[in-house]
Amino acid sequence: MITKVENEPELIPEIRDRLIPRRRGAIRIGITGPPGVGKSTVTSALARRAVDEGHRVGVLAVDPSSPFTGGAFLGDRIRMQDVLGEPRLFIRSLASRDGHGGLSPATPHAADIFDAFGMDRIFIETVGVGQAELDVMTTADLIVLVLQPGTGDVIQTLKAGIVEAADLILINKSDLPGTDILLDSFRFLFDISTRPKDKPQPPVLSASALNNKGLAEAAAEIERLIGDFVRSGRHREKVRARLEHEIREAVVHRVWDEFAALTGAPEAIRAAAEGLVADGQSPYPFIRRLAARVKMERREQKSEPDHER
Amino acid sequence: MITKVENEPELIPEIRDRLIPRRRGAIRIGITGPPGVGKSTVTSALARRAVDEGHRVGVLAVDPSSPFTGGAFLGDRIRMQDVLGEPRLFIRSLASRDGHGGLSPATPHAADIFDAFGMDRIFIETVGVGQAELDVMTTADLIVLVLQPGTGDVIQTLKAGIVEAADLILINKSDLPGTDILLDSFRFLFDISTRPKDKPQPPVLSASALNNKGLAEAAAEIERLIGDFVRSGRHREKVRARLEHEIREAVVHRVWDEFAALTGAPEAIRAAAEGLVADGQSPYPFIRRLAARVKMERREQKSEPDHER
Repeated sequence: MITKVENEPELIPEIRDRLIPRRRGAIRIGITGPPGVGKSTVTSALARRAVDEGHRVGVLAVDPSSPFTGGAFLGDRIRMQDVLGEPRLFIRSLASRDGHGGLSPATPHAADIFDAFGMDRIFIETVGVGQAELDVMTTADLIVLVLQPGTGDVIQTLKAGIVEAADLILINKSDLPGTDILLDSFRFLFDISTRPKDKPQPPVLSASALNNKGLAEAAAEIERLIGDFVRSGRHREKVRARLEHEIREAVVHRVWDEFAALTGAPEAIRAAAEGLVADGQSPYPFIRRLAARVKMERREQKSEPDHER
Repeated sequence: MITKVENEPELIPEIRDRLIPRRRGAIRIGITGPPGVGKSTVTSALARRAVDEGHRVGVLAVDPSSPFTGGAFLGDRIRMQDVLGEPRLFIRSLASRDGHGGLSPATPHAADIFDAFGMDRIFIETVGVGQAELDVMTTADLIVLVLQPGTGDVIQTLKAGIVEAADLILINKSDLPGTDILLDSFRFLFDISTRPKDKPQPPVLSASALNNKGLAEAAAEIERLIGDFVRSGRHREKVRARLEHEIREAVVHRVWDEFAALTGAPEAIRAAAEGLVADGQSPYPFIRRLAARVKMERREQKSEPDHER
């Protein structure tokens, strides 16, 4: 079904009609962070622990497809294999959008498919740089930011903006020097800074995923955060916001497709751009005329009021 | 004018009507790369050299506004000061979108404003992580990727996807150990890999911006790339593609605004999402009904054919 969603997007409405009523509120945990900090190892370890705790677990791994390699870097997937052979765990990699590290547009659908098929913990591991980190903020319920000591000061990390979105910061490779300084720096920064009220300061933990140290504590902390998240109503609000976003995007698409079919807008725009480069004029007169080319009228419907389906 | 564009987006059409005919084809050079590699120092140095070569130079610096600091990290701006006091150089910082490192939506307008006011070299320095790197790919004509030795292997760097978009790779802090290995690694990788035909392998240079080493070579290489870029017609194509994108976005917005005004779509969507969370049903029946609520008709226009303005 994930392959269908990836390759035949025209089937998405039908698939979603069947899928959405079967969802059971699985929690989506985004694992993000800069390249090289060990996100895949952390994801494998957390996924295995969730299985041991009785959860059914799905892992979505963004697979960077680069012209340099002609496909995936296999390293991450090979490491993921050490958690395979477990029926309560399903791992799926997704091609990255445009090869620029963004999550595949199929990612939220794939998470819903996992959910509908009975998985209750879904880990989404992003390539860690670029669009993916922003995408994961909207797709995931909780975000674990993985860092490692010794790769730059805290200020540089904060600059990336992702720290503000993190629900848990995990300093991996805690056997390396600099772990304590990094932990102290975050704690100091959190002491002197403010966050939006609905977003408490994230706990900062250290671990060494490769040596299996600190992961029990991280996994327990994640479960505690999930409990808070559900009880506080933030989970419901996240589900609602994602649905609102999906509806809006779908309606905008349909409206634009109808407009484009009536006016031939894509070709007209291409021709106009070509002409405008040549004569160096503003595009706005064309924009105004093109938008005015269609007359819209509200159609009277005999159907139910707005808030019903 | 940049402040107007930032704060009063409703003025953009009028501003662009006046601005676009005054543009003279300035070259936009994006400076990007991971946090901490010295992008600001490199940008300062390249901007100063461009001034010395007789260019009028604009610098746009994305200013990460973070809840942690209550505003800008001042480091970058302070370092930029050492190139100020020069009338042929204008530096402007722009707030980052959503505080997540994305370029401000005002960035392409600010670049056009610089262009219309006579600057012919525009450097756009991005915060280096997240959305900004993707934004800069569409806004900039040429992209300089700044890296430094010793912060992770080449594979990890390649994973980020930005390498494929780079026109020049500059290894800064070349006084640090590992510079030669990093240079060799890139050269080896470029030997064994393929790139799209319209995008040659980028030159890889090393420099130490702080010690003013290697920058003359980098600046000369950038000018050589600019020459190729203009002569090959890629510059014209980039200008055309940006214009096409601008027109499309503006028309989509206008069409959606009209649809939303007729149907009250934003409120209806919010109410529908709330109801759907409660009953767990698919949103597609609502999506189909909302899209069908408006009848579109082509309006006959007495005006010119499509490709004229």
